[in-house]
Amino acid sequence: MIAPQSVGRVTPQVAHFAEPLTLRSGGVLPAYDLVYETYGQLNAGASNAVLVCHALSGSHHVAGHYDDAASVGWWDNLVGPGKPLDTRKFFVVGVNNLGSCYGSTGPKATNPDTGQPWGAEFPFVTVEDWVATQARLADRLGIRQFAAVMGGSLGGMQAMSWTLQYPERIRHALVIAAAPRLSAENIAFNEVARQAILTDPDFHGGDYYRHGVVPARGLRLARMVGHITYLSDDAMAAKFGRSLRHGKAVYHYDVEFEIESYLRHQGDKFAGFFDANTYLLTTKALDYFDPAFEHGGSLAAALARAEAEFLVVSFTTDWRFSPERSREIVRALVHNRRPVSYAEIDCPAGHDSFLLDDADYHGVLRAYFDRIEV
Amino acid sequence: MIAPQSVGRVTPQVAHFAEPLTLRSGGVLPAYDLVYETYGQLNAGASNAVLVCHALSGSHHVAGHYDDAASVGWWDNLVGPGKPLDTRKFFVVGVNNLGSCYGSTGPKATNPDTGQPWGAEFPFVTVEDWVATQARLADRLGIRQFAAVMGGSLGGMQAMSWTLQYPERIRHALVIAAAPRLSAENIAFNEVARQAILTDPDFHGGDYYRHGVVPARGLRLARMVGHITYLSDDAMAAKFGRSLRHGKAVYHYDVEFEIESYLRHQGDKFAGFFDANTYLLTTKALDYFDPAFEHGGSLAAALARAEAEFLVVSFTTDWRFSPERSREIVRALVHNRRPVSYAEIDCPAGHDSFLLDDADYHGVLRAYFDRIEV
Repeated sequence: MIAPQSVGRVTPQVAHFAEPLTLRSGGVLPAYDLVYETYGQLNAGASNAVLVCHALSGSHHVAGHYDDAASVGWWDNLVGPGKPLDTRKFFVVGVNNLGSCYGSTGPKATNPDTGQPWGAEFPFVTVEDWVATQARLADRLGIRQFAAVMGGSLGGMQAMSWTLQYPERIRHALVIAAAPRLSAENIAFNEVARQAILTDPDFHGGDYYRHGVVPARGLRLARMVGHITYLSDDAMAAKFGRSLRHGKAVYHYDVEFEIESYLRHQGDKFAGFFDANTYLLTTKALDYFDPAFEHGGSLAAALARAEAEFLVVSFTTDWRFSPERSREIVRALVHNRRPVSYAEIDCPAGHDSFLLDDADYHGVLRAYFDRIEV
Repeated sequence: MIAPQSVGRVTPQVAHFAEPLTLRSGGVLPAYDLVYETYGQLNAGASNAVLVCHALSGSHHVAGHYDDAASVGWWDNLVGPGKPLDTRKFFVVGVNNLGSCYGSTGPKATNPDTGQPWGAEFPFVTVEDWVATQARLADRLGIRQFAAVMGGSLGGMQAMSWTLQYPERIRHALVIAAAPRLSAENIAFNEVARQAILTDPDFHGGDYYRHGVVPARGLRLARMVGHITYLSDDAMAAKFGRSLRHGKAVYHYDVEFEIESYLRHQGDKFAGFFDANTYLLTTKALDYFDPAFEHGGSLAAALARAEAEFLVVSFTTDWRFSPERSREIVRALVHNRRPVSYAEIDCPAGHDSFLLDDADYHGVLRAYFDRIEV
């Protein structure tokens, strides 16, 4: 079902960049494509553009739908005419990040030097690289300055990085369910996911494409463990609890508890369409992100160069990036006397709350976007 | 180094049980061995016996050491002459649970019907089964009633189950860092670990022994994800933080952050000695444990039959079995007007705190054991 406020049917576009791109890892891409979608109209002054950055498994398909009416964008509840990010006022851009498997140049793409898929040879990408390519896309679209850049989780890190890499090109940063850098525990979960993929015999050192297989077992496990960290303990308890499929213990390794069925389903589904190399690259981008690193570990020092106004949003039950991690960002901004609004939303759904249409959460976003002048 | 209060050199013993054992799963073991150790002397009235139950990867080797002075028992800091569980006063029994890989009959043992290792045919075991076999061992040792049964984590569940299965045979239950039943999130983590093992091509449906391999990749991943849940976020931050092995990002999938090295080491070490079938069986025993299930979900109703006095201990930073889970037990006991002492220990080490010699924690245990009359 398409909600009445949907942007409707959308078509992804492709921007080709022929100039070589040197990445922070030292790797060089001779050329690359970025797939993106836009919703609404760029105004005459190009002052109403909002960039939406995606998280680990997201894409450029933020809102609307394709031919298949069920193919709804991942933030469709937020973006559309009359929605909190109102496309009657704003020109919204969703872009697929470099290294992804949804159309922008990534490990599945052909390496022009070899004529084979990049595979393990695809260079490491970082949040900063993504932001740099997003800026090139903005140039292409005639957007000198974004009214706002927003994102949840890894997307929020990109919004933050925009304020540091291009302080004069972003007026508002919406950093949602994010953290200024991963904790050791965050890295640990990523590492388990990576080891699941890297040690899958079907991984073939990242060149599984030419073997006609995919490391589905590893990717499935990676998604299963990731999924646990996206939900809250309470949400899992409320949704599944200890519900037994057969009403009692059966004593086998097939599904007994409903939570097992849910996790397996999530893992199987994900392994059926996502690319393992993209998963590896993206978890590494998460691990590497640390704007304070070059400032002696001081986030306040790092954020001193930001000129944007900030909205920081966290969710009480998010234990992947807890409210305390958002408050680190807020404190660093306050230290720099930057304008910052902070909302801690009481939502039971854990980290995934940022994708939901919780009324308080959307109310905060709506109010914030309403006051942005274009 | 052997501490001066060590019980010294110890030798495991084997008790053979020739009578068939019917398990809760319906499976039958025609006969079985239990490996155990004892420390101290059983007094004339057999009133000073304390049973120590082990957790997921533990064993009967609770205290002292073998020929190799480094082979120290897992709770040696707690059990010995002059230690909180003082072997000058108490006769302490450590027993290896059925299904384990440390000597008691388990999947690696020979199935008398086939002459082959049990492997996947080894029957499912439960906490209740373990307690039943521990009671048989107590009979063999001439212990009609334990002064106390104690354990941490899964060991604490056994102590709790003792009070329900044999209320007249246990005077004190020490339930440490445990929960009355697993939450959906707890089960979810177990399920990821199991799927890592079950989908390892070297698992061979559980009959890997005859293929001359072990599902090391799966067992390694299982241990890695388990290990994350044993530590606290704070402890990981304090111990590893974002320390980079090379001082900066190197952009590869070898170790970059020290936490990665630690986790891989833990996983590799564990996969080198632990048995995958035992891991599977033990996580299932954890999942199944739910004394309230047969009482309409009421833990208070389940505990109504308990006659023991309880000491319940939790740790502030334990997020695997948080203090709230221990308080569930305390509330159910208070509801039944059972004598219960509860200590919530402020220790940074997460779930693993129960294995450490935190002064407050050991002080509580020492005081509790001191007042037990024998």
